[in-house]
Amino acid sequence: MSVNADLQRERAAATLDSEDFARWWAGGSLLLEERRTLERRFYADPDFAESVHPSCLSYKERYEQTVARSTRFLAKLRQWQRERQPQLQLSVNMLRDFRMLLSGSVGTALFQQSFPLRVHFTMFMTTLLSQGTEEQQAQWLNRAWHMDGVLGTYAQTELGHGSFIRGLETRADYDPLTQEFILNTPTQSSYKWWPGGLGNTANVAIVLAQLYVKGNHYGLQSFVVRIRDERTHEPLTGVDVGDIGPRLGGNGVNNGFLGLHDVRIPRNQMLMKNAQVLTDGTFVQGRPPLLLYGTMVYVRVIILKDVLFGLLQGATIATRYSVVRRQSRINNDEPEVSILDHITQQAKILPQIARGVSYRLVSDWLWRFYDEVIRQLEDESTPERNSLPELHALSCCLKAVATDEASEGVDRLRKSCGGHGFLSSANFDSIYGLATAAYTYEGEYTVLLLQAARYLVGQYVDSLKRKVMPSSVSYLRDTARLAWGKNLTANCVRALQISAMEQVRQAWQTQKMHQSSKVSAEMASNLTGRQLTSAAIAHAHAFFTRNALEQLEALRRKGDLSPNISLVLGQLVELFVIDTFLRQSGCVLRWNNGITGTQLRFVERRFEELLAKLRPNAVALVDGFDFHDRVLGSTLGCHDGRVYERLMEEARRNPVNQEPVNSSFHNHLLPMMRGKL
Amino acid sequence: MSVNADLQRERAAATLDSEDFARWWAGGSLLLEERRTLERRFYADPDFAESVHPSCLSYKERYEQTVARSTRFLAKLRQWQRERQPQLQLSVNMLRDFRMLLSGSVGTALFQQSFPLRVHFTMFMTTLLSQGTEEQQAQWLNRAWHMDGVLGTYAQTELGHGSFIRGLETRADYDPLTQEFILNTPTQSSYKWWPGGLGNTANVAIVLAQLYVKGNHYGLQSFVVRIRDERTHEPLTGVDVGDIGPRLGGNGVNNGFLGLHDVRIPRNQMLMKNAQVLTDGTFVQGRPPLLLYGTMVYVRVIILKDVLFGLLQGATIATRYSVVRRQSRINNDEPEVSILDHITQQAKILPQIARGVSYRLVSDWLWRFYDEVIRQLEDESTPERNSLPELHALSCCLKAVATDEASEGVDRLRKSCGGHGFLSSANFDSIYGLATAAYTYEGEYTVLLLQAARYLVGQYVDSLKRKVMPSSVSYLRDTARLAWGKNLTANCVRALQISAMEQVRQAWQTQKMHQSSKVSAEMASNLTGRQLTSAAIAHAHAFFTRNALEQLEALRRKGDLSPNISLVLGQLVELFVIDTFLRQSGCVLRWNNGITGTQLRFVERRFEELLAKLRPNAVALVDGFDFHDRVLGSTLGCHDGRVYERLMEEARRNPVNQEPVNSSFHNHLLPMMRGKL
Repeated sequence: MSVNADLQRERAAATLDSEDFARWWAGGSLLLEERRTLERRFYADPDFAESVHPSCLSYKERYEQTVARSTRFLAKLRQWQRERQPQLQLSVNMLRDFRMLLSGSVGTALFQQSFPLRVHFTMFMTTLLSQGTEEQQAQWLNRAWHMDGVLGTYAQTELGHGSFIRGLETRADYDPLTQEFILNTPTQSSYKWWPGGLGNTANVAIVLAQLYVKGNHYGLQSFVVRIRDERTHEPLTGVDVGDIGPRLGGNGVNNGFLGLHDVRIPRNQMLMKNAQVLTDGTFVQGRPPLLLYGTMVYVRVIILKDVLFGLLQGATIATRYSVVRRQSRINNDEPEVSILDHITQQAKILPQIARGVSYRLVSDWLWRFYDEVIRQLEDESTPERNSLPELHALSCCLKAVATDEASEGVDRLRKSCGGHGFLSSANFDSIYGLATAAYTYEGEYTVLLLQAARYLVGQYVDSLKRKVMPSSVSYLRDTARLAWGKNLTANCVRALQISAMEQVRQAWQTQKMHQSSKVSAEMASNLTGRQLTSAAIAHAHAFFTRNALEQLEALRRKGDLSPNISLVLGQLVELFVIDTFLRQSGCVLRWNNGITGTQLRFVERRFEELLAKLRPNAVALVDGFDFHDRVLGSTLGCHDGRVYERLMEEARRNPVNQEPVNSSFHNHLLPMMRGKL
Repeated sequence: MSVNADLQRERAAATLDSEDFARWWAGGSLLLEERRTLERRFYADPDFAESVHPSCLSYKERYEQTVARSTRFLAKLRQWQRERQPQLQLSVNMLRDFRMLLSGSVGTALFQQSFPLRVHFTMFMTTLLSQGTEEQQAQWLNRAWHMDGVLGTYAQTELGHGSFIRGLETRADYDPLTQEFILNTPTQSSYKWWPGGLGNTANVAIVLAQLYVKGNHYGLQSFVVRIRDERTHEPLTGVDVGDIGPRLGGNGVNNGFLGLHDVRIPRNQMLMKNAQVLTDGTFVQGRPPLLLYGTMVYVRVIILKDVLFGLLQGATIATRYSVVRRQSRINNDEPEVSILDHITQQAKILPQIARGVSYRLVSDWLWRFYDEVIRQLEDESTPERNSLPELHALSCCLKAVATDEASEGVDRLRKSCGGHGFLSSANFDSIYGLATAAYTYEGEYTVLLLQAARYLVGQYVDSLKRKVMPSSVSYLRDTARLAWGKNLTANCVRALQISAMEQVRQAWQTQKMHQSSKVSAEMASNLTGRQLTSAAIAHAHAFFTRNALEQLEALRRKGDLSPNISLVLGQLVELFVIDTFLRQSGCVLRWNNGITGTQLRFVERRFEELLAKLRPNAVALVDGFDFHDRVLGSTLGCHDGRVYERLMEEARRNPVNQEPVNSSFHNHLLPMMRGKL
């Protein structure tokens, strides 16, 4: 099949070598080739062809199709893993690699809306590893890995309880006579709700419940509860389980509900690495689970990777489509132009590419920082000196702001594709669904911002006394006003930092003001909610921009960027910084009232210059992200640019178009016409 | 069934009488009662009960269910109309009332994602009325009204052509020998794409095509083309027709594609009110279709009503849910609070209510202005003195900004409901789908802004010479700087006006600057795209805020607001103005650099004061919008607040939960477990 001529022209004219960029983006030629080999293997496999677009299926059909597909996928993936590494050792790192694979290209290509067994390999097995004793791991982990009678899920959130974990109502009462726990969801609102795979797929659940022994409450503990019969899959006595229904996105997940009514499990099915209940009911608290805290942080770190993946999928689709789509003339005597030639369109798309790439730089750093903190935690000699609070605060506000900006970005990209972007076959709806889900799961947006803000206000107060501050917040001590210099990005970052510092200061002052009136400290915090969240958002923007610039510098210093990549990356990061500055200009101008109109015009002009500089490499850039057509899953975004052909092909495949006359004509329309309204 | 206790408490404590508000909101007790009677009639009818939530159905099932439901609906609606008004006269106004009914409460309640026959009663019949000769109307209109063998649609947009109408490729060649037009979609990109009901439902289409007679091109004309056999519904020879597939929203519409290959229609099926082709092929241009232009404007005016409806549906759901949902403690020794008690939650929801109500005030004014302009146009004595350009520019930028803000608002409200907002049973996905579709259809966002901006720049240039300006742009002449006075809303509106004026000025200057370099005037406009769109957006915000305040004043002067309604409306409009000011603060501070930190803090404090003032009446207010539970279609938003019960009920109804063990266990999961991964 031929490639669209406009796309060909773009590729021929680019100064960036997209293969060169792809190698760097993938982390080297080896990793790039490895991924491509894996992708070829799966995408060529007729077992994974799709005869009907999932958006045409009923919810039940979709579930069944996803299960069929995921069992085939897991078997073939395991086969591939064995070929590469015959002695596959189960470990946290292996599970992490697996998680990355599932949310990476292959996982996305085959399961655009995820799949029910994913949580088995992520939360379920991870929790066994981090909270189970050696015996418990021996009992469950190997079987879980081989899916030998164990299909797991992780049940924490309840119908009436989410962010405030202490409020969970599900309870586990220890019965010393039988040495069993009795699990109950005593109210409607205590039904477990949301766990992936719980609906119709999992037969074992790790259930978070309030532990009670002889009437005493010992806080939340995790329990391994079999919920369906291993052989028949029938729900066990006392178990009320099902799927919670369709959602805005991620409809392959089989999210479920779970009611437990006097369900008994043996004592050894409470996960006891960190706390134990002895046979007689004695409760023993073990080491405070710092690493557990680390796991929550870990998930937020990985979400940054997930959402930048989605954002760049969207950017790739929109960029290619905007070259193929011609609309409106610029000059009256010439034909309609590619819409990417309209500066308004460039301004919608290119900043999203810049954002995705900059997030990637920050995300790489964040991973390294995460590993460092974990090492600190494992180093028992200096438990008090660790950066976990800093990492925690960062992971909170970066996750919150990145999921917000990325989902907004995906939606903006969708809209940039006009009506066609609205079609499910364009796949923006699915990409948006996953991105915006991340806004809420694993820490709700506002809740995370408030957590980060608490840290920031604390650090700000400390900064008035202390000299050495954690690096990410050291700017809170810097009270110098903005000195507008020659370095534009430095000006922007500094202005964002000043805004963040002032927002933190304002939040602190507002809190103090409310405290000095009659309300409690807690109510004062509540009344300062808007200032606190604004402070955390401002901090995230200041951090993202500064860190992206620093990572770019570090890469350049290391010398492993080709001149062209270095140039384009520089343009992208600069665009990201300026775009952030302009988008935050309300906050920026409020706290930097020395910025003049001339300076602002200069920033705006530079923004437009960067659009013009990046425009010729836009297609080469998105080609360099190396998303396979299957990963994009979009009629608008394919590599060959055959947009209109694919839109028609996809429409013709729709089951509703398989008969020339739908039965409802005879059943309803004709009778109505005969009855004559 | 009992009502949730928290909701009951809210209602008991409110100072606003929601029935009182409902009467005002509906336009008087008579209209309110009339609507309620109609609603009761339909909602009590078992023919319109819903056994399965539409989000669980396949696309084809959903289509069939929607057709069945819409034929029943139309028959019963006609019956009701006959009872009220036995001598129903077909007219433009009647079609408008019908359109309002379809997009109002009853239409929404029964067709959350619209339905295929809607375009028959709107675009199809309206076009016959406005462009058909009397004979053509005699031939088609009566049959259309009675759906007597005529199910119509309106086919304009093509796969490759949207906003730039002149670029349409479909052609109609007149053949004087047979006195027929020959219609063709000569390329893939010229296939008609999007018309509602076209997929499987309509049998007649009004097709927009380029008219050619003897090789001469006479521009776009409208043709009535039969596409399916009246009796068998089979597509006619040369007609390639089908459904374009699932979308982000509005999945009941049956949007279709249409290819025409040498399809011949008689000469009298070109709509000839405004232009004729005589039998010998002579082309006669009639009166320029000013009213046609008016119709485009009309649709944009009505869209403002549509999106504020959706925004307030969302606000009602979020408000009630936020009272029922308890999460996180404010004080540690007290239970978890209603999330509406968190100021961050109030800041997400209350400004949306304020926006919806303020849009309503502006929309009422816009309707009156529209009617006035139509009267001007029909008054042939002074054709040159009319406000159509002003109305057109206003309708462009208000439609663009309102659809953007409203869809953003719906999404924000959805997120304010946390995970549950993500469920299809909450109905935000459907409401969002319709709202965001309006961002693109009937004039794409950026295209409309550019059109409005062209008018604004023109007016600005005129303002340098002229004294009398159209009222909506008269502020463009006012170069006085901001004088911050005691009246806070006046300060905010004035600051927004100054920003708009400066943005217009900047756009004009940028355009001139580019023109003075070597590019063409058109390219200069393209390069000024960002400044032009910003100017139109700023104008819309300035207009919305000023007009909402003016309408409130007018209502108060007329004296038909009860003191309580007047008070609450005042708080809402003030909140809307301040919220707009704060959200636009980047633009505002840029162009009003005299605004001090103290003044800003004052605005922010007032914002929070208004949240606190409105908080106790939040539930009474949304009750006053009087959305029936069926209109909201949401497990989270029902009047009785039984949120968790409804979530569970809806989940249990899902077909995937009807069997304890899904077939995929035996077909896929069990074999996989036996094969042991």
